[in-house]
Amino acid sequence: RQHVQAGDFTMGDNGRKYWVGFDLGGTKMLCLIFDRKFNVVGKARKKTKGAEGADAGLARMIETIDEALKDAHAERDDIGAIGVGSPGPLDLNKGIVLEAPNLGWRDVPLQDVLEKKFKCPVAVANDVDVGTYGEYRFGAGQKARCVVGVFPGTGIGGGCVYDGKLLRGRVGSCMEIGHMLVQPNGRLCGCGRRGCLETVASRLAIAADCAMAAFRGEAPNLLKACGTDLANIRSGAIADAIKAGDKAVEKIVRGAAKHLGNAVGNTINLLAPDVVVLGGGLMEALKDLYLEEVRDAVSKRAMSSFVKTVDIVSAKLDDNAGAMGAAALAAERAAE
Amino acid sequence: RQHVQAGDFTMGDNGRKYWVGFDLGGTKMLCLIFDRKFNVVGKARKKTKGAEGADAGLARMIETIDEALKDAHAERDDIGAIGVGSPGPLDLNKGIVLEAPNLGWRDVPLQDVLEKKFKCPVAVANDVDVGTYGEYRFGAGQKARCVVGVFPGTGIGGGCVYDGKLLRGRVGSCMEIGHMLVQPNGRLCGCGRRGCLETVASRLAIAADCAMAAFRGEAPNLLKACGTDLANIRSGAIADAIKAGDKAVEKIVRGAAKHLGNAVGNTINLLAPDVVVLGGGLMEALKDLYLEEVRDAVSKRAMSSFVKTVDIVSAKLDDNAGAMGAAALAAERAAE
Repeated sequence: RQHVQAGDFTMGDNGRKYWVGFDLGGTKMLCLIFDRKFNVVGKARKKTKGAEGADAGLARMIETIDEALKDAHAERDDIGAIGVGSPGPLDLNKGIVLEAPNLGWRDVPLQDVLEKKFKCPVAVANDVDVGTYGEYRFGAGQKARCVVGVFPGTGIGGGCVYDGKLLRGRVGSCMEIGHMLVQPNGRLCGCGRRGCLETVASRLAIAADCAMAAFRGEAPNLLKACGTDLANIRSGAIADAIKAGDKAVEKIVRGAAKHLGNAVGNTINLLAPDVVVLGGGLMEALKDLYLEEVRDAVSKRAMSSFVKTVDIVSAKLDDNAGAMGAAALAAERAAE
Repeated sequence: RQHVQAGDFTMGDNGRKYWVGFDLGGTKMLCLIFDRKFNVVGKARKKTKGAEGADAGLARMIETIDEALKDAHAERDDIGAIGVGSPGPLDLNKGIVLEAPNLGWRDVPLQDVLEKKFKCPVAVANDVDVGTYGEYRFGAGQKARCVVGVFPGTGIGGGCVYDGKLLRGRVGSCMEIGHMLVQPNGRLCGCGRRGCLETVASRLAIAADCAMAAFRGEAPNLLKACGTDLANIRSGAIADAIKAGDKAVEKIVRGAAKHLGNAVGNTINLLAPDVVVLGGGLMEALKDLYLEEVRDAVSKRAMSSFVKTVDIVSAKLDDNAGAMGAAALAAERAAE
C-alpha cells in the first residue's frame, strides 16, 4: 500500500470502501458511488443551475455527493477518493475550473473545496477526458496501449489515453480536435478562427445547415418536426428526419461525418492509436452512418500501416461514462 | 544498478565506458562514440551505398562502428549500448527495418545483427525520432515535458517526446505530420493521397513551384543558378535566390512555411507541447523566415492558452543530432 502526503490528509489506496465519480454538466450534475470493483452502489442527481453562481453550485455539489452517499448507505469517511469531470478550461495541477462558459463560473477551486470538505484526495479533469478515460477503463478501449476519444456534440471534444495515462497540456487538457483546420478560409468558428472542424462537423454546424435546407423546402420532415430554429434541431430530430426520408439532411450529416473522419485520420497519423472511440449525442443517434463515413475517410487519409492497426468503434458506456471515468481516474491517482 | 535480461547478454547500465550513436542516412552513414557524459570521443563515416544490398550495408555499418571505436582507442567490450537512427518504416519492437525505400532495403534485422556482433543492447529508432530525442536531451527541447520536433526536408517528418519518452505506434513510429490533410482535393502526394502537408511544404514541393517560377522567368537568379531541374533546387539554392532578390521564390517559401505553421498549429491543438523544434535543411537555410511564418500561423491557428505555453524554436544540434539522440535513447533504454 502506497501513501502520498497531500495537504493535511494521507492520500493513497487507503482501504476505504468507495470511490466517488462526479459529472458536472452544463444542465445537470450526477454523482455515482462505486464500490472497489466499480459497481454502482449509490446515485444522486441535481440540476446544475450554474447561473446561481459558483458558491451555490459548490454547495449543490456537496449536497449531491452526500445524497449519493446516503443512497449507498455510506459515510463521508468511507470515500477513498473523488473524481470530478468538469467543463474547461481547467488548471489540472491545482484542480481549478478557470472558466466554464456554460456555467458562468470563473476560478473555482473545486479540488481544494472538496478535499477540505470530504478529507480525501480529489481529482478534477476535463469532461471529455474523463469520458475517454472511462471508455479506456470500462468501455470500448479497454487495455489498449493508446485510445483516442472523439465526442462530436455542440462542440467537438477529444481525449487520449496513452500507456494508461491521459495526455495533457502543461496546465490544462489537450486534444482540441474540434479546432483542427479542415477548411482553409472556411466558416467562422466560435473560437474566432476560420475553418475549424467544429464549423463543419459539430451538432451546431449540422443543425445550421439543416435549418437552411428546411427553410429552402429541401427537408420537409425536419421542417415539420423542428421548424427552422437550429436550437430545436437536436441529434434525435436529425436522425428522425433522415429515417423519414429527408435526403438533404442525410447528405449534410454524411458530409460532416466525412470531415470528422479526415480530422480523425490526421489524428491517427500523429498518434497511431490502437482504438478510436466515437461518442456523444450525434454518434448515439446515427451510429451506423457515422462509423461508415469515418472509417471510409480514415482509410483514405491515414497511413496504411496505421489503418491496419486501429479499430474505430462507438462508445460503449452510457450517460454514466463521465462519472465512471472520473472515479477511476481518482482511484488511479490515489494509488500512485 | 539495474539489469534486464535480453537474449544471451545482460542489458543494463553495465558500467562500460562508451555509448555508440549511429545515423543511417540515405547517402551516408555516421557513427559517433560518446563517453558517459556524451562527449564525442570517436567518429567514422562512410557512404551508405544502399543499392549494394542489405548484407553489404550491414557489413559497412559494422566496419564503420569498428573504425569509430578505433578512432576512440576503444574496444567492442567497452560499448554500453548502440543506438541507430534509421529511415522507416520500422518494427520498433524487434528492431527491424521493414522497408527503407531510399536504401532499397526490406526486412533487415538491424537490432539482432548488431546485438550478436557487438554483444550489447541495441536500440533502433526512426531517424526523425532520434533527431527529436537528441534535441530533447541535448538541444532546444531540454527538460521540457513535451517536445514536438518537425523536420521539413524532401519529406516532412515529425517526432514527439512526452514525459521523457518518444511517442510511438503499436509497431513503428508515429507523428506523420507530413501526411496531415491541409488542402482538400489538393496536389497528389507520394503516399498516393491528395493535399497532404508534404505536397505544399516539403523541399520537393517548394522546388517544384520554384522550377515553374524559373521556367516562367519569374525567378531569374534561381534560373541562372539551378535551371529548371528541381533535383538541383536544394535548400541552399532557394535561400540564395531569395537573398539575390527573387521575390517569386520568397513568396513560394513563405506560403509553404504558412502551411507548415497551420499543421504545427493543429498539432499544438492536439498535444499542447511546451516546445516545438523546427529542424532540417530548409530551416537551416532560411531560419528567420521559417520562424516568422510558423509562429505567425500558429498564433492564428492554435488555442490561445496553448500559444501562451509553447516555444517555437529552431534546432540547436548540427549534423550530429541523429547519432547523439540515438546514443542517448540506447543509453536510456539500457538503464531501464
